[in-house]
Amino acid sequence: MSVIIGVDVGGSHVTSALFHGEAIVRRAGTSFSHGSHGASIVQVILDAVQAVSATEARMAARVPVGVGMPGIVTGDGTVLLAPNLGIRNLALNDALLREGLRAHVVNDANAAALAEWYSGAGRGRGSLICVTVGTGIGGGVIIDDRLVSGSAGRGGEIGHLTVAPGGPLCSCGSRGCLEAVSSGSAIARQGQEAAHAGDPCLNDVCAERPGMIDAQMVFEAARRGSARARQIVERAGRYLGQALAGVVCTVDPEVIIIGGGVAMAGDDFIEPVRHALEQSSLYRLRRTPVVRAYHATDAGVIGAAVHAAIAERVLREVR
Amino acid sequence: MSVIIGVDVGGSHVTSALFHGEAIVRRAGTSFSHGSHGASIVQVILDAVQAVSATEARMAARVPVGVGMPGIVTGDGTVLLAPNLGIRNLALNDALLREGLRAHVVNDANAAALAEWYSGAGRGRGSLICVTVGTGIGGGVIIDDRLVSGSAGRGGEIGHLTVAPGGPLCSCGSRGCLEAVSSGSAIARQGQEAAHAGDPCLNDVCAERPGMIDAQMVFEAARRGSARARQIVERAGRYLGQALAGVVCTVDPEVIIIGGGVAMAGDDFIEPVRHALEQSSLYRLRRTPVVRAYHATDAGVIGAAVHAAIAERVLREVR
Repeated sequence: MSVIIGVDVGGSHVTSALFHGEAIVRRAGTSFSHGSHGASIVQVILDAVQAVSATEARMAARVPVGVGMPGIVTGDGTVLLAPNLGIRNLALNDALLREGLRAHVVNDANAAALAEWYSGAGRGRGSLICVTVGTGIGGGVIIDDRLVSGSAGRGGEIGHLTVAPGGPLCSCGSRGCLEAVSSGSAIARQGQEAAHAGDPCLNDVCAERPGMIDAQMVFEAARRGSARARQIVERAGRYLGQALAGVVCTVDPEVIIIGGGVAMAGDDFIEPVRHALEQSSLYRLRRTPVVRAYHATDAGVIGAAVHAAIAERVLREVR
Repeated sequence: MSVIIGVDVGGSHVTSALFHGEAIVRRAGTSFSHGSHGASIVQVILDAVQAVSATEARMAARVPVGVGMPGIVTGDGTVLLAPNLGIRNLALNDALLREGLRAHVVNDANAAALAEWYSGAGRGRGSLICVTVGTGIGGGVIIDDRLVSGSAGRGGEIGHLTVAPGGPLCSCGSRGCLEAVSSGSAIARQGQEAAHAGDPCLNDVCAERPGMIDAQMVFEAARRGSARARQIVERAGRYLGQALAGVVCTVDPEVIIIGGGVAMAGDDFIEPVRHALEQSSLYRLRRTPVVRAYHATDAGVIGAAVHAAIAERVLREVR
């Protein structure tokens, strides 16, 4: 990568970074209102680009920009669906191009996978799955050194694999998705139910940290001996392991990378994942390494920049 | 493909075909004893090659040979596991090379996927999943016009996706695999249980066709109005649809191809597959076409030949 800009758009926060080679030489972050939907997401991205390129006039027009978006993004940069931003069917590459940006849009968890492949836990690997466990669950699949975005941008959407048929309702509208049982919000929801039912450890943790129960509080209660909290965490990890065993039987990557705020919490989560993988005979045939992500909060901007670099190289070759 | 030989090794039968371009100009098939395990599978393959190349002296040594094997086959042609043949860890490419064959070994269901991609229901598609429902369930994934064999040959092994956690024991040793609930042998097993429990339709079908109940008999009983048989067939299709919805959320292929003796039986099986896919919100976002395989019994030899042709081209490019 020479000079490139990476933008990571979240549900209410956008981060941008200016790269010279692999080094971030300038970065910016800003919150935006949830009202900034649809077309105005273009302005949010333009501002984020401007924030890291302001001192170099007209730079934004010359530098390739990678944009990670929380939603289903097709190979040509159309956002088919981004529920948290209220976006449907927005040709974002084209919209940004009209504003003078050499933009290349990619799903945010796909971007995180590219970051791990390029300079993280998947460096030197030709194929990998990288799963990001945060409020939701995203993922990215790389095969033969190429991101699998899929025919409609659904590559790596392992948060929506059915792991508990007929189980809890997912934000996508289906039942029993991995995201509905193993994501940070699913762990928090189950923790709230346990606290409501009078789990003493969870209530102790709650007393110390006022506010809604989140996934970290459930992890903390599990460490303090709450059998109920441990059960919630272990089950979340087990379902993730079951989903990953399915990925092994579908594309059989060289390495499984687990990242995101929830999964980075500790071994509480990774151990049940490994244990569930061990239940699969085909997994045991040759154990695929399960490793923690290398990149943390920068995964999004790094991966978006890597995506732009690859897209520009491909464009150069085509022209 | 110019002149090439395809060999399709089953559990007790081997088929071979000599191709001139896309046309089969000679074919042979023979049964072999289940005792012919391990090293002697090499002799079975040599004989099958000889059977279609006998009139052209030393031809076998010059012509590339593709070999489809019922088992887990790594990218370098090592059979890690072929339970029905009692094979473990056999470097079959190398063993056949030592016998003078330019052999390229591939998993049989992966071969079927290549056949569909090359000249079947996936012609012109860059990515697909092809699932073969017979006695067992195999599959093959193609992405960016390349077969995904995976880091240990497990690419496309969707018969071993967990669809019914804690469910019936699979031949692989795990529980609740797709193969354990939706394969021909799983449908037959459930039919036998229903007949044992006194299902009248199934017992009528049994009376007409003596012998063990097979999947076709369960389909027939379902058509004649057996609620129990229809339930078995619909559940088998539903689980397959659930597994395929997972594939859509992992690699999102352009087309889903369903083949194999059981699935080709009729719409009894395909309709519940489509219905289960419709339960997935991400599937509904853009419906991936679900089509029947084009090739029937020749899929194995055609796909093995395609695999050899691709491997030879790659070798030429490398040299």
